Amino acid sequence: MPGYNQGIPPSIRIMSDQKSKNITPRAKDFAAWYQDVVLAGDMAEPAEIVKGCMVIKPNGYAVWEHLQRDLDARFKATGHQNAYFPLLIPESFLKKEAEHVEGFSPELAVVTVAGGKKLEEPYVIRPTSETIIGHFFSRWIQSWRDLPILLNQWANVMRWEMRTRMFLRTTEFLWQEGHTAHATEQEAYEETVRMLHIYGDVAEETMAMPVIRGVKTRAEKFAGAQRSFCIEAMMQNGLALQAGTSHELGQNFGRAFDVQFQSRNGTLEYVWQTSWGVSTRLIGGLIMTHSDDRGLVLPPKLAPTKAVIVPICRKDDERAMVMEKVDAIAGQLRALGLNIHVDAREELSPGAKFFHWEQRGVPVTIELGPRDVASGTAVLKRRDTGSKTPVPIGGIAAAVTAALDAMQAEMLERARVRLRENTVTANSFEEVTAILKDATAEKGGGKFVMTHLKDDPTVDAKVKELKASVRCIPLIDEYDGPGKCILTGDTVDRRVVVAKAY
Amino acid sequence: MPGYNQGIPPSIRIMSDQKSKNITPRAKDFAAWYQDVVLAGDMAEPAEIVKGCMVIKPNGYAVWEHLQRDLDARFKATGHQNAYFPLLIPESFLKKEAEHVEGFSPELAVVTVAGGKKLEEPYVIRPTSETIIGHFFSRWIQSWRDLPILLNQWANVMRWEMRTRMFLRTTEFLWQEGHTAHATEQEAYEETVRMLHIYGDVAEETMAMPVIRGVKTRAEKFAGAQRSFCIEAMMQNGLALQAGTSHELGQNFGRAFDVQFQSRNGTLEYVWQTSWGVSTRLIGGLIMTHSDDRGLVLPPKLAPTKAVIVPICRKDDERAMVMEKVDAIAGQLRALGLNIHVDAREELSPGAKFFHWEQRGVPVTIELGPRDVASGTAVLKRRDTGSKTPVPIGGIAAAVTAALDAMQAEMLERARVRLRENTVTANSFEEVTAILKDATAEKGGGKFVMTHLKDDPTVDAKVKELKASVRCIPLIDEYDGPGKCILTGDTVDRRVVVAKAY
Repeated sequence: MPGYNQGIPPSIRIMSDQKSKNITPRAKDFAAWYQDVVLAGDMAEPAEIVKGCMVIKPNGYAVWEHLQRDLDARFKATGHQNAYFPLLIPESFLKKEAEHVEGFSPELAVVTVAGGKKLEEPYVIRPTSETIIGHFFSRWIQSWRDLPILLNQWANVMRWEMRTRMFLRTTEFLWQEGHTAHATEQEAYEETVRMLHIYGDVAEETMAMPVIRGVKTRAEKFAGAQRSFCIEAMMQNGLALQAGTSHELGQNFGRAFDVQFQSRNGTLEYVWQTSWGVSTRLIGGLIMTHSDDRGLVLPPKLAPTKAVIVPICRKDDERAMVMEKVDAIAGQLRALGLNIHVDAREELSPGAKFFHWEQRGVPVTIELGPRDVASGTAVLKRRDTGSKTPVPIGGIAAAVTAALDAMQAEMLERARVRLRENTVTANSFEEVTAILKDATAEKGGGKFVMTHLKDDPTVDAKVKELKASVRCIPLIDEYDGPGKCILTGDTVDRRVVVAKAY
Repeated sequence: MPGYNQGIPPSIRIMSDQKSKNITPRAKDFAAWYQDVVLAGDMAEPAEIVKGCMVIKPNGYAVWEHLQRDLDARFKATGHQNAYFPLLIPESFLKKEAEHVEGFSPELAVVTVAGGKKLEEPYVIRPTSETIIGHFFSRWIQSWRDLPILLNQWANVMRWEMRTRMFLRTTEFLWQEGHTAHATEQEAYEETVRMLHIYGDVAEETMAMPVIRGVKTRAEKFAGAQRSFCIEAMMQNGLALQAGTSHELGQNFGRAFDVQFQSRNGTLEYVWQTSWGVSTRLIGGLIMTHSDDRGLVLPPKLAPTKAVIVPICRKDDERAMVMEKVDAIAGQLRALGLNIHVDAREELSPGAKFFHWEQRGVPVTIELGPRDVASGTAVLKRRDTGSKTPVPIGGIAAAVTAALDAMQAEMLERARVRLRENTVTANSFEEVTAILKDATAEKGGGKFVMTHLKDDPTVDAKVKELKASVRCIPLIDEYDGPGKCILTGDTVDRRVVVAKAY
């Protein structure tokens, strides 16, 4: 993996919306807090004129670029290549896979007129691309020699949702969708799990967001999949967020789009497919995992700007002296490949500047005034802990790198502790009900409840009555093994995660 | 700028469509040749099921990624930041700028149904984003302190074209669109020209495609712009390709979307805007500039794979010895940061492999057999010239880098010579007519005709009768200065470029 910048060059100018915003405290209203942090962090804003859409602003888009680079490098290291398929899909394509059309048709945006004429067959804007890619796979795949095909697409997709929230659920969102075709079920299974772990690793290593890797119940799987794997994260209000999914599609789309190949034995067989995706929703998860009442907190690996240097000089004659040191420090840090910003605006007070960058989630701020220059030290402040440390100017590069490394590690650890502390076991439906009773997105109090439940749609339906859901059956059982389903009494393999969720 | 790979990690597996295709010779039918090269080069294929769309295949998409990285680094180095705006635009927005709606409405794809309901106001899929971005600029800009705003968006756009050709003109295409707002006309002008030169530099330095930088006539400018700058390239058939545009929008969109700011003097003024874009069309230009009857030729800076090593071993006991050297060579080259592929497939002959990579535009192939290993040399073949050179295995890294550098430089030089040799002057409309009479996209014979013409829509209309157009008024006059317009007799500043075009 490349360093903190993922090889992304910094823009030499940062769009400086100077307005600072008030942020509702988390404890008062978590949902309002989230919205305030997104706005104050200059990450995005709602685009009311287009239903459920948002504008991703530079500070938000840069986080997405960092995530993209990291994911993309891992996709390529595992043999995938990028390609691009059409945005529009003939409406009839979706109908070829029965579960798929049922899952997606309520959410479709439909193009009925183009080039001034009514279309004979309408197009839908892709909600996901299994169908159109299935069509091309059937053109490209004839023999086992053509397999596996390992593709990824970076794209926008559209799902007409009723209730939307910036990043978490928007009618249009940006994502990547991997689509692969294999000769055997085993190979497809391995691919599905491989990509799930890549998502889990990026969530933990890069986003500092611990996740549970698991399998969805049959009721919760992707429309058209044989089995769906997922990573589930816990937000600060205890609610679950599905942060990424990886699907074994079996031969469902192969049959629907007639993707057959001649096997090594000469028989004609349907391919085994997978699909997997993460989206700009990750950024919502990132915000709800780490941010605080003062605004955005970004893990150093994803922060577009790693450090801001604020020169403090009240008199003109101090200015030259301080700025000389500031430029020298910025130069040292940039030589390490870190994106550094010097905030030399004269119209703002130092306090206003710190407030400004704090709201925008810059990991480290460095304060340097005439007295600091005289004493050969600068004051380094960490965004996550708020700790201020004087460091010798000569050792500033080492101090900043150490602070970034520590922040990245400690943010993950804090989130892990929170996940652990808010995960509880329950052995009856009444217990589950009591635990989740008062939890809401606004008020918090959510828990991950580990309990024995059968993978059966009627069981999922019963859990839904609690406004909760079975989030996943974890891949690794960290609890007490098999037990009786608290609803049906059947013996099941391990405890599952039940939680209220976004 | 980063090196040959632009920092893009290679995929460890290349999708290997083993089918080689026949390529129509350029001289026989240039248009058929182009289509064949796109297909044989595994760059894209038509998606007939979605009108005028294509699938960009991995070899084509990787070229786009290289272009993106190069452009993106230059945008950031000049202070731009990336953002993302909605795909859908309320239909009424387009109508706010009179010229803009007139230019784009015949080409719009319209969403009339979404989430199962007929929409009250339809949305159009963005053909370009001036209108929706204008809307947000009006929210974000209040004071001169908010200016300039320098944004760029990487996105897909849609224009419902009647006649399409892969990469050159597709109903959906990928592009970047820069959108900036400034306090003064002068600043906006400087931005427009700055971005034009970035396009020109990328075309020449990275794509090895010489261009003429110029201004569009009023008749040819972007719908809604005050003035459009462009880069024009000459394809191998002598036809012109508009490869990038940069627009001074004046205050047109500022007025339409009420983007006003308080100036330093306290007056309320409309902002001065620019927009600029290049698209996947560049890849069409790249192909038509360099490729030959054997298939794709890619300049080294954009080739996803810089070199392929083909081991030649007929007997099993030779294999281990040859492969050991092959791996050592691949290692040396990869250590330079070059994407290298070893084609060790056993089912294909060396000849078939060379043919395969030749069609796909790999700049350098390295052949290594038992006799080469014994003599300590390998055979290095350049894709553009076809020249084969034995090089000492110990010096292979230096030889490959030298070959890539030479190829990049010579491809540009050859294209420059061609542009020069096919540019002629004419001093009467009859002369222009005679020169362009028999030129067609299929048969070639196109020329850039330098002649004196007035910037007047009636003059453009007359030129259109020749199935040609005024491509641009060059920024730099390399000819004989002012002269009389060959149609109106008015004195004009310099000769303009007239050509048939894509």
